[in-house]
Amino acid sequence: MLYIVGIGAGSREGMTIAAQQAIERSELIVGYTKYAELIKEYFPDKNYFTTGMKQERDRVEAALKESGNKTVSLICSGDPQLFGMAGLAYELSPAHPDAKIVVVPGVTAAFSGGAVLGSPLTMDFAVISLSDLLTPAEKIRKRLECAAECDMVIVIYNPSSKSRADYLKKACDIVLKHRSGDTVCGYVRNIGRDGQESRVLTLSQLRDTAVDMFTTVYIGNSETRAINGKMVTPRGYRNV
Amino acid sequence: MLYIVGIGAGSREGMTIAAQQAIERSELIVGYTKYAELIKEYFPDKNYFTTGMKQERDRVEAALKESGNKTVSLICSGDPQLFGMAGLAYELSPAHPDAKIVVVPGVTAAFSGGAVLGSPLTMDFAVISLSDLLTPAEKIRKRLECAAECDMVIVIYNPSSKSRADYLKKACDIVLKHRSGDTVCGYVRNIGRDGQESRVLTLSQLRDTAVDMFTTVYIGNSETRAINGKMVTPRGYRNV
Repeated sequence: MLYIVGIGAGSREGMTIAAQQAIERSELIVGYTKYAELIKEYFPDKNYFTTGMKQERDRVEAALKESGNKTVSLICSGDPQLFGMAGLAYELSPAHPDAKIVVVPGVTAAFSGGAVLGSPLTMDFAVISLSDLLTPAEKIRKRLECAAECDMVIVIYNPSSKSRADYLKKACDIVLKHRSGDTVCGYVRNIGRDGQESRVLTLSQLRDTAVDMFTTVYIGNSETRAINGKMVTPRGYRNV
Repeated sequence: MLYIVGIGAGSREGMTIAAQQAIERSELIVGYTKYAELIKEYFPDKNYFTTGMKQERDRVEAALKESGNKTVSLICSGDPQLFGMAGLAYELSPAHPDAKIVVVPGVTAAFSGGAVLGSPLTMDFAVISLSDLLTPAEKIRKRLECAAECDMVIVIYNPSSKSRADYLKKACDIVLKHRSGDTVCGYVRNIGRDGQESRVLTLSQLRDTAVDMFTTVYIGNSETRAINGKMVTPRGYRNV
């Protein structure tokens, strides 16, 4: 049995009860070294197999193979679908016809970070990653353009890295073609972890702010407001 | 203290530990009658204040008022931001200057339903509600058009109701202008509850399928595939 488990932002409290149960039931925990360290603190008596960044395929192959005769949890931060390992596990599963996969959902950064900022995600929104490692840059630009044009709240994952230092600025420039510089935005760094930081700011300010790869960014829609320092997208109930 | 708590899809296991702790700490639980019934089973000894559909404002006002001298949990299904009460609570909070609000995130239907189908939400996606009760119909059409055009996976909330029986068909027709009728789609009804049903089907089939308001619908992007009956959006690791 292979559980593909979303552990949320990183605190034990942010895990679902189902995620906790899957890990408790497992004889082997497989994951990216950094996330495995978080989990080891809560489940110190388990066996772990960990690999580093960009070794996703090795990790998933190992988890599928071991799940033939063991209960295995393959852990992912946030939710195991979104930029996680569930998709890859299903892609590789035809070579492991006996593998039984169960995806255990978790709270992705869009929601754990949104809760820190207030309620940016009250309504329709789009999640867009700025990483062009696995998606062509032209497709990312097109998605930003479309999401900006139809006034959806936009959540940006992977806003920056050493080799992509100016990507958030470029993304803001695309959105600024359709939205005012006063649009309410926000970001949260190290969500649910030590050193959590957040800020509510305008789109013009966001454009000129440097954020790192541990940051999730929110661009409000035309109705999003700052209320007592919180980023709030109204739903419209007040007008009903 | 006012906790605005996402309880996930409805099972106790789908709740986060933080959501469970917030409810346990609370002297009063406020919520929509149907969701309160789910919670009462797990926390039978609490005091509850419940209201029916379309009484969101009464519920939130009551929760804000009571939180002045009590610890209160305002419960929402899924996540408390997305089509939940967190936004409205912040909107009404200036009239309750002493209210202390903490949003406790939960797993929204997009992710709990996606886990049932496989991994449709591996990458960039948009959430769009078809309910035109609080959003102009023209804006909804525009969002569908934009999300379809830039090849994002689309998750549809509120796909149908008695007065909107043909809305999903109309939404599919918009998407069909940009995507093939063979596009892999899926839906899940009663996610995580008794009578859960799911199906993976093509966009052409989805167009001619009747779904109810308890259903969450997924329209794949151009790369989404059906693998052993699961709906899987690849991330691209295999090509790296």
